[in-house]
Amino acid sequence: MADVLSASAATDPEAKRRRTTVGSAPTEPLEHMRTETLHLAAANGILLGADGPFSHAPCSLLPYAFPASLFSQAESLATPFNTLVDRVARDTDWLCKTVRSVVEHDEFTRRLLELCEEVVAEGVVQPLQLGIYRSDYMVDQPTEDAAPRILQVELNTVSVSFPSLSAKMTRMHRQSVARWGSPTDRIMAPYLAKLPACAAALTDDTRLPLNASESGVAAALALAHREYIAQRDAGKRGAEGAAPPTAVLMVVQPTERNVIDQRGIEHALWREHAVPLVRMPLKQVLASGVLDGPQRRLRVDGVEVSVVYFRAGYTPNDFPSEAEWSARTLIERSMAIKCPSVAQHLAGTKKVQQVLAQPAQLARFASDEQAAVLRSCFAGLYGLDEDGGEAVEAIVRKARVAPDDFVLKPQREGGGNNLYGEELRAALGAMSPAERASFILMERIRPPTSSVPLMRDGELDGGPCTCELGVYGVFLGDGRRVLLNQPAGHLLRVKLDGVNEGGVCAGFAVLSSPVLYP
Amino acid sequence: MADVLSASAATDPEAKRRRTTVGSAPTEPLEHMRTETLHLAAANGILLGADGPFSHAPCSLLPYAFPASLFSQAESLATPFNTLVDRVARDTDWLCKTVRSVVEHDEFTRRLLELCEEVVAEGVVQPLQLGIYRSDYMVDQPTEDAAPRILQVELNTVSVSFPSLSAKMTRMHRQSVARWGSPTDRIMAPYLAKLPACAAALTDDTRLPLNASESGVAAALALAHREYIAQRDAGKRGAEGAAPPTAVLMVVQPTERNVIDQRGIEHALWREHAVPLVRMPLKQVLASGVLDGPQRRLRVDGVEVSVVYFRAGYTPNDFPSEAEWSARTLIERSMAIKCPSVAQHLAGTKKVQQVLAQPAQLARFASDEQAAVLRSCFAGLYGLDEDGGEAVEAIVRKARVAPDDFVLKPQREGGGNNLYGEELRAALGAMSPAERASFILMERIRPPTSSVPLMRDGELDGGPCTCELGVYGVFLGDGRRVLLNQPAGHLLRVKLDGVNEGGVCAGFAVLSSPVLYP
Repeated sequence: MADVLSASAATDPEAKRRRTTVGSAPTEPLEHMRTETLHLAAANGILLGADGPFSHAPCSLLPYAFPASLFSQAESLATPFNTLVDRVARDTDWLCKTVRSVVEHDEFTRRLLELCEEVVAEGVVQPLQLGIYRSDYMVDQPTEDAAPRILQVELNTVSVSFPSLSAKMTRMHRQSVARWGSPTDRIMAPYLAKLPACAAALTDDTRLPLNASESGVAAALALAHREYIAQRDAGKRGAEGAAPPTAVLMVVQPTERNVIDQRGIEHALWREHAVPLVRMPLKQVLASGVLDGPQRRLRVDGVEVSVVYFRAGYTPNDFPSEAEWSARTLIERSMAIKCPSVAQHLAGTKKVQQVLAQPAQLARFASDEQAAVLRSCFAGLYGLDEDGGEAVEAIVRKARVAPDDFVLKPQREGGGNNLYGEELRAALGAMSPAERASFILMERIRPPTSSVPLMRDGELDGGPCTCELGVYGVFLGDGRRVLLNQPAGHLLRVKLDGVNEGGVCAGFAVLSSPVLYP
Repeated sequence: MADVLSASAATDPEAKRRRTTVGSAPTEPLEHMRTETLHLAAANGILLGADGPFSHAPCSLLPYAFPASLFSQAESLATPFNTLVDRVARDTDWLCKTVRSVVEHDEFTRRLLELCEEVVAEGVVQPLQLGIYRSDYMVDQPTEDAAPRILQVELNTVSVSFPSLSAKMTRMHRQSVARWGSPTDRIMAPYLAKLPACAAALTDDTRLPLNASESGVAAALALAHREYIAQRDAGKRGAEGAAPPTAVLMVVQPTERNVIDQRGIEHALWREHAVPLVRMPLKQVLASGVLDGPQRRLRVDGVEVSVVYFRAGYTPNDFPSEAEWSARTLIERSMAIKCPSVAQHLAGTKKVQQVLAQPAQLARFASDEQAAVLRSCFAGLYGLDEDGGEAVEAIVRKARVAPDDFVLKPQREGGGNNLYGEELRAALGAMSPAERASFILMERIRPPTSSVPLMRDGELDGGPCTCELGVYGVFLGDGRRVLLNQPAGHLLRVKLDGVNEGGVCAGFAVLSSPVLYP
């Protein structure tokens, strides 16, 4: 993709501050795109904030060029990864053994592991596993001549964000690109004509792929909700009294800025499926929740819970006291379908990802053919087990010599906290072998860059960027029957090159959408 | 409708400030409705603001009870009022003569009148008149025993606001009422059950009437756009060269807070009809506009304008210099379809409304049968012409004796500036007969009150309220053929009883939607 920024606006702070009043039509492409995108985002609820006023979600003003074949490959990986997580989460012996090596220095994972073991020992009352996952990829292209490939950054199995806002982003970019490319836009039409990927999309809108992330996630929740009710009521006759009011429970953080994304799923679930959803933080689940009868039906405030959809509980910060762990335990022991169960949660830890990168381990869960498909996107992943012997020492030495070729990641979930470069070198030097065991080393991906204009808090920014493509996957199965297994849309996040951390809400990355090129 | 407010939250400032954090499910109906409505408004773009961050539009948390028969009557009046405005605007002799009596003390109307006369003298090049009107009604019920009736407050023929946000409000209330009434909402379901109108809507959603205000206004603009192109290209052969890029022009204020409503129409026009729209303040129209050829085609920045949709130009404040008047003149002289033309604009002045309240004058434009239908909603309206003789002195005396039975309204458009009670009495005492002539006296409407919870800037309020129902009407015709004449949705605004001024953006009124009762 050509450089879509005029040099001045990308770098000149004065240009960033420059504002036209709202009514006057801007004469500059960047200011024109800024104003139009700001209003499109507001009109369509692409917003962050909890108690108002609301800010537009950080976003790119144009879609970001992405290779069509790699996009298709990423989409096609959703189904096998869904299957893999389901199998791993059901093989709790293997799972618990695998995760145990990291828990000495990772209190959060230790608690999850103990909960998993406790529930397995007691006997699981709900065979259905609902997965709403997102597999995140970066494009790796170390040199311009190298063929680009996608490498998996992580496989998220809990609280995947942006299924609603990402669908809205795609709709927004499809609308703005088409409008700006029309000959009545005297500023943008000639500008877009110079951007090959966007220009091609004007005559072929499949290059801006539709995005079913919101509707797909809502449909998965609705299907699980209906299956739960069918299972509960199986064999009952109508005469046995009215069914209790039943709803999906969304577990949320007590303070959350990304509320409109969560509400988007709640609203779609109601609008498209007439399935009610109640929101609650863990502490309130404990205060109002009970397990009912031998089936251990979960009731909160008198409402029976069909599905617990976690949009919290993925970071130690979500468990400031034992009350939250008690709530998590109450949920896990119940008949409600957990999305995810603690086993599915553990199946998404980086330790599991690293162990499955070993062909012998992956063979436990996938045929040779399936394994080859999955491995096509595996980056080099290296565990730092205490008893790893010379293999571990060798990779640590290698990383200290060439720290820019690696990322040091903590095992636990939640984003951030990754170490790069000199920090990585220093950390590896300072840690004891026991401390190292709660981290993994990952081959550092070398993504190509492409320039795109960005907007944060209404301010223009831009420059060479890299992107991360997430593909949502939805799965429902009971270990015998698979009721749902498919991709469910995508998320493209973009950040300025050189920014190591991610996170849209944290202000590092912005939402975007792909414009595909052959 | 029962009082839907707990007394404390309506009046106790502490209660208004009370906040729960976002994640915790509120236990009070009011706080529950507040949070849910805040997020629904944000997720659906029911917002005010121009450059971000965006505030939710002031709104009621529940729909407002309105008599079904009066709602139907108001809807049915849209078509005859559309016809009336079209006929009045085409009878420029009568129109100019009627308006002339008020212009001595109303500079703004004088300029409009002069423009109208100038364009008529030159010859009108565009016979098509597009109307996007809104007739506003209040319910009059002086005593509890009296049968309620609707009385017209004003007939707006220029820049009618909220066609987009009002449609979104209806969708929001339909969703929230249905969701809150479901048995899984343990707070709201028992609460709604006690509100007869809302409770009835749970089993009969036609009581929350669908609202086509956004799509109807967009469709009217699209039809006019297509008619313009057909007219321009009539008789042309394909070989005569590509048609110039053609768009609708929205004239906007340089500073405007209600941008998201305007953008909603722009987006619907593009999404549903692929018709492009450009936004511009009057000053920029002058800077970039030219009239092309003997047809006087309007071009701005190289784009031919099919329809000029005024969302500005209704108040003297929009004409701070001669540049704005020059722009208005340029538009009026052009072949573009004006929405409204200056004649349609003048047809909506209060002077015309007052004169048409006289049966002999109305007979000029409506058959006996049509006139009876129209007059069914006329309030008492009294012109204060200088040469009005004893009739004027008599009504002035009556108003000074009983000022609470009247409203003193300036002739000019734009809302606000009405005088009530003691202010009215004082003004009538102080004005010369010549000054009085730019005002009209209107019978004061005595609306019933009903309590509804409101939200402004995220803060709860509420108490006994009155409402004003607006019905949008869309019309397209060329004086011989009528191509479109129908109602296009509605707007229900609510304000606390005792607040004399209106205006949602000014903070006096809030957006709502009707819940009908038999």
